[in-house]
Amino acid sequence: MHTKFLALLGLAVCASAQRFVRFVSTDGKTYTGDAILPAGDFDASHSTQAKVITGDILGDFTVTNEVKTIKTLLSPLDPDRTRTVRCVGFNYATHAVEANVTIPDFPILFFKPWTSLAAPNGKVPVTAGYQNQTTNGTLFVSSMDYETELVVVIKTKGFNISEADALDHVLGYSAGYDVSHRGWQIDRGGQPQPQYSMGKDADGWGPWGPALVSTSIIKDPQNLNLWTKVNGMVSFFSMGITLMPGDIIFTGTPSGVQLGKANPVWLQNGDVVETGTENIGTCTNTITYV
Amino acid sequence: MHTKFLALLGLAVCASAQRFVRFVSTDGKTYTGDAILPAGDFDASHSTQAKVITGDILGDFTVTNEVKTIKTLLSPLDPDRTRTVRCVGFNYATHAVEANVTIPDFPILFFKPWTSLAAPNGKVPVTAGYQNQTTNGTLFVSSMDYETELVVVIKTKGFNISEADALDHVLGYSAGYDVSHRGWQIDRGGQPQPQYSMGKDADGWGPWGPALVSTSIIKDPQNLNLWTKVNGMVSFFSMGITLMPGDIIFTGTPSGVQLGKANPVWLQNGDVVETGTENIGTCTNTITYV
Repeated sequence: MHTKFLALLGLAVCASAQRFVRFVSTDGKTYTGDAILPAGDFDASHSTQAKVITGDILGDFTVTNEVKTIKTLLSPLDPDRTRTVRCVGFNYATHAVEANVTIPDFPILFFKPWTSLAAPNGKVPVTAGYQNQTTNGTLFVSSMDYETELVVVIKTKGFNISEADALDHVLGYSAGYDVSHRGWQIDRGGQPQPQYSMGKDADGWGPWGPALVSTSIIKDPQNLNLWTKVNGMVSFFSMGITLMPGDIIFTGTPSGVQLGKANPVWLQNGDVVETGTENIGTCTNTITYV
Repeated sequence: MHTKFLALLGLAVCASAQRFVRFVSTDGKTYTGDAILPAGDFDASHSTQAKVITGDILGDFTVTNEVKTIKTLLSPLDPDRTRTVRCVGFNYATHAVEANVTIPDFPILFFKPWTSLAAPNGKVPVTAGYQNQTTNGTLFVSSMDYETELVVVIKTKGFNISEADALDHVLGYSAGYDVSHRGWQIDRGGQPQPQYSMGKDADGWGPWGPALVSTSIIKDPQNLNLWTKVNGMVSFFSMGITLMPGDIIFTGTPSGVQLGKANPVWLQNGDVVETGTENIGTCTNTITYV
């Protein structure tokens, strides 16, 4: 583990290194920047300053020497830049086992709407329809769960992308929190062929960040614990389908979610979820009834 | 049936009537227009001319008296205006029965990406990954099927929209063709909890049109054969979720698809699918291996 960190540190100091952050600074303005981190620290949630980036991180951009103080981190890419969020179900065998489903032969694809995208730290709003509710004397439980996933951001348009070319279409990696209400996802999702969407698509149910780590830093994503096969996934999802700059892929959750537990402890109003992803950083979110 | 037509005809002649079409004219330019139809005809695919509309049909617009010839119909709304396409599974009891699934208590929601949206008439591209393929001696059949659905287009942003207010957020109605590959949808969708997306999200697998019929014409969508409960659906899909102008809802297929047949006849390369929706019109699409 420590060796891996050092190897990535070696890459991190190259001239083109970027940990893209978007933030509100002390002047009240919003900037995109390259997070400044102490040597050996890879968690942009620890950053207090960033170098301002001019231009478009999905196109041509420049990392300037102008330094701004980070007051509040936003999602690394403006949600307005994302048209489509693809998510993978049961990509990890251990999660498939805990969820008691057969491990699929092909990636299971579902979508979250772009409106679910949110800043890495903040409130996860839970409206009345997702809170406990009693219908005809039967309690429908607010079964809020967390899935932490590696996130891939697409840089350039592609169609029928080969595995060999897949990484050329990737801007970088981040961490996402696929907020999931198991009752709406599964019980009310339409048995025996539930669709996940109503359990996963509310506003703010896709926090991500703290940084979008450029492929210039993470050259080989296989080094990440949370990683499986980005090449195959980008290629598979472009089969007859155009991927666009700004499109986001949530690559599926490893095991450890409440869904798989004999006595799941669902998240309640006020619960704080802190999720950390190696080489990317920490997101901290609070389940908030609204 | 005929009475219903006449009733709608009465509405159709009001001053603000619009059958929004987007088209390439004989001058090579693209216009949005109000389709001109012979009296008593409701199928904009029969239109040869339209009155040019200036402005934005999702905002303020004017129907001018300038008439242009329709050369090629495009999707009624530029796909670039749509961020999210919601689709309903098994909304119709007869379709649930033919597909051999339990009728769900709540609408089943899934998404198509905006990149699947296409013109009402044209080719439905089927790339190699969706054609017949033999793996280890086992044939995976290209099980292309058709679902014709009433489509709802959102006009104004909304969140937690009440059923009473739902129609205020609707611009109008159209017909959509939810192109579906049953093998990718179900067999390869990840049993026992298949997600529909890979079977439904390829480029061009969401033709719609021929016109987007304004709510100023179809005041009471319950009059449409293909209709169930737009109010409840718009309200339900906005539960904790922001619907945006240009968002599209495919409201689910009635029965009659190949999926439900004992010996389904899947669509083959070159097959032409003509789908008609009362008061909206006809779409004609050709399955095309590319």
